[in-house]
Amino acid sequence: MPADPIDPLRPSPPHDDDPVLALHERGKMEVRSTVPLADRDDLTAAYTPGVATVCEAIAAEPDLLYDYTWVGGCVAVVTDGTSVLGLGDLGPRAAMPVMEGKVIVLKEFGGVDAVPLCLDTTDVDEIVETVARLEPSFGGINLEDISAPRCFEIETRLQQRLSIPVFHDDQHGTAIVVLAALVNALTLTGRQVLDTTVVISGAGAAGVAVARILHEAGVGEIRVVDRQGLIHAERPDLPLHKAELAALTNRAGLQGDIATALRGADALVGLSGATIGERALAGMNRDAIIFAMANPRPEVAPEVAAAHARVVATGRGDYPNQINNVLAFPGVFRGALAVRASRITPGMNVAAARALADLVADRLAPDFIIPTALDRRVAPAIAAAVADQARRDGVARR
Amino acid sequence: MPADPIDPLRPSPPHDDDPVLALHERGKMEVRSTVPLADRDDLTAAYTPGVATVCEAIAAEPDLLYDYTWVGGCVAVVTDGTSVLGLGDLGPRAAMPVMEGKVIVLKEFGGVDAVPLCLDTTDVDEIVETVARLEPSFGGINLEDISAPRCFEIETRLQQRLSIPVFHDDQHGTAIVVLAALVNALTLTGRQVLDTTVVISGAGAAGVAVARILHEAGVGEIRVVDRQGLIHAERPDLPLHKAELAALTNRAGLQGDIATALRGADALVGLSGATIGERALAGMNRDAIIFAMANPRPEVAPEVAAAHARVVATGRGDYPNQINNVLAFPGVFRGALAVRASRITPGMNVAAARALADLVADRLAPDFIIPTALDRRVAPAIAAAVADQARRDGVARR
Repeated sequence: MPADPIDPLRPSPPHDDDPVLALHERGKMEVRSTVPLADRDDLTAAYTPGVATVCEAIAAEPDLLYDYTWVGGCVAVVTDGTSVLGLGDLGPRAAMPVMEGKVIVLKEFGGVDAVPLCLDTTDVDEIVETVARLEPSFGGINLEDISAPRCFEIETRLQQRLSIPVFHDDQHGTAIVVLAALVNALTLTGRQVLDTTVVISGAGAAGVAVARILHEAGVGEIRVVDRQGLIHAERPDLPLHKAELAALTNRAGLQGDIATALRGADALVGLSGATIGERALAGMNRDAIIFAMANPRPEVAPEVAAAHARVVATGRGDYPNQINNVLAFPGVFRGALAVRASRITPGMNVAAARALADLVADRLAPDFIIPTALDRRVAPAIAAAVADQARRDGVARR
Repeated sequence: MPADPIDPLRPSPPHDDDPVLALHERGKMEVRSTVPLADRDDLTAAYTPGVATVCEAIAAEPDLLYDYTWVGGCVAVVTDGTSVLGLGDLGPRAAMPVMEGKVIVLKEFGGVDAVPLCLDTTDVDEIVETVARLEPSFGGINLEDISAPRCFEIETRLQQRLSIPVFHDDQHGTAIVVLAALVNALTLTGRQVLDTTVVISGAGAAGVAVARILHEAGVGEIRVVDRQGLIHAERPDLPLHKAELAALTNRAGLQGDIATALRGADALVGLSGATIGERALAGMNRDAIIFAMANPRPEVAPEVAAAHARVVATGRGDYPNQINNVLAFPGVFRGALAVRASRITPGMNVAAARALADLVADRLAPDFIIPTALDRRVAPAIAAAVADQARRDGVARR
């Protein structure tokens, strides 16, 4: 029993020899008042009875919620802990450090407030109900680390039900950054988007979303490979999300493994964690593009990939061309909240990718196709593009 | 359309001629990172891939959640907006300014982080389910502005289900401060708690909780009056919470109105908003104690009450002896979180009241029976008492 149980509020845990654990003591975030609370007048205005004026104003005109509370600038970062980083189903408690990380990145880069919510249920109906009931408290919902295929249904049903943006970062954040990097890599290698063949390894949350955004952006031919090989319309027992992929991709109806898929392909996007052998890579077109994004061990070592490709990118910070979601979600939410968007359309995601790509367009090089994670120009540029596109798509509410 | 939709994130609303509305522009709170995010090493440690270490540690030992995230020091402030201040059922959106006020007071006075959650449901089952699913995200639950009698069932069921403290502030916050003020007023008027007769006007959330805490503290005779008059065991059609009150109070089985109740009473606690006439007050014992707490219009004007009582208190900040919940909940949560209490027992509430009363015991006067709302000694003193009592009651988990 500590001598004084109160100060500090929570004593240090015993594991502080690890610097990362030490950094995480008591978490990574706090709330702060943005108004003074120094004297009785302050308390009267911010608390009772003064606050009654504000409550009555919102009761009379509910949209004032977004003007007179933090709600309009605040996002819930929601998980059920079923797919934490690459670690799998660690449960909601173990997911909290990741959610706090998302929150502080949203604030630091996007100026967006956020709250981490880890849910003690993995039932799709219950997750949808729970988040829907929280709608009055938030200006947007960032879903995170929810396993596929549940994540697709949860996002779709929530977005149908809510009039605030619902954004599954593992899908769309990844897709935006991949598209941005790909657009620049295609320019660098003298290709047109329409004439390009892209192979995606992995049909989880990220793989599905990347396929969709590449389709939305007009990529000519997309092939998706999962553990059983190429996805094609004739394959038996395709779950719904893969059947949808089959309709968007693999127009030639190719059947076979990753080597078949890569034959004559211009680009590979690795989102599976599966190892991809050199023999398969050898079948790609010359001046190929390889994004090997599994973390920490890419699908193919960057040095090996370089022997088969002109442009190589990974998910790691210690190689050039890091494809990192940090580049996308702070700006997307900043832009969506700024115009009080009711949803985030596919067009808004593509606009975010194009804005991101444009930031390095004048300095393109094989080892520089995407801004670095700490580039402060990124979130404002994405936000402006997202806000503009929201207006064009008719989902902006101001 | 503003020239730049992005900066500021949200333009000012058009109602800023009212200073209270102007103060509330964009709300009263924000989140902040407590770790640096200046360079790639910072990002690697606080975000991916560094954070994986912390996730795995918590997955292996779930209690580390309280050491390595903000959860152990963070409270959800939850409402359904059915009983906002004294304004009634304004709905969850209009309740948000009050919840933000609670949050900043918790932080400012108690050093406790908190998140305002306004729920888009008034169904008891749905509220219980929703809050229960959020348990991994919070160290405690503060229920707020939920109408009676639903608030009793919600609190009871949640506390049965969760292993973190659930505290309905409108009940227990009020009860703690009333008991503290009453204890000092009794001392001042030379009375013993056991020999005292207290009348409570109002059997809503606050009235019920005050009756319970006075019973817990040993007050000799308690009488509760609602719109239909004195509550007694023979009264037909008593709802559950009033039947429970009947068992704790009115031992003589008195029947009648507030005047009957006040005859020979030592103290009146007004928690109803109903007007109480002078003729009824005239029946109280000499050196009476009157707490007229309806806000902004007390049940009896303080000047009128003073003609019938030696000690008068109200809920207002512009009279002496303000009975304000601000005095209770920050310290209660600080103490409960410090020892990771699994619940807040009746004894912890009484201990909080005694600690609060003690702070002014050496300077007692009829116009000074309770500390002022801005007294910085209050929350630490209550926290220490609550933590101690949690240990004695066997609900402290460290």
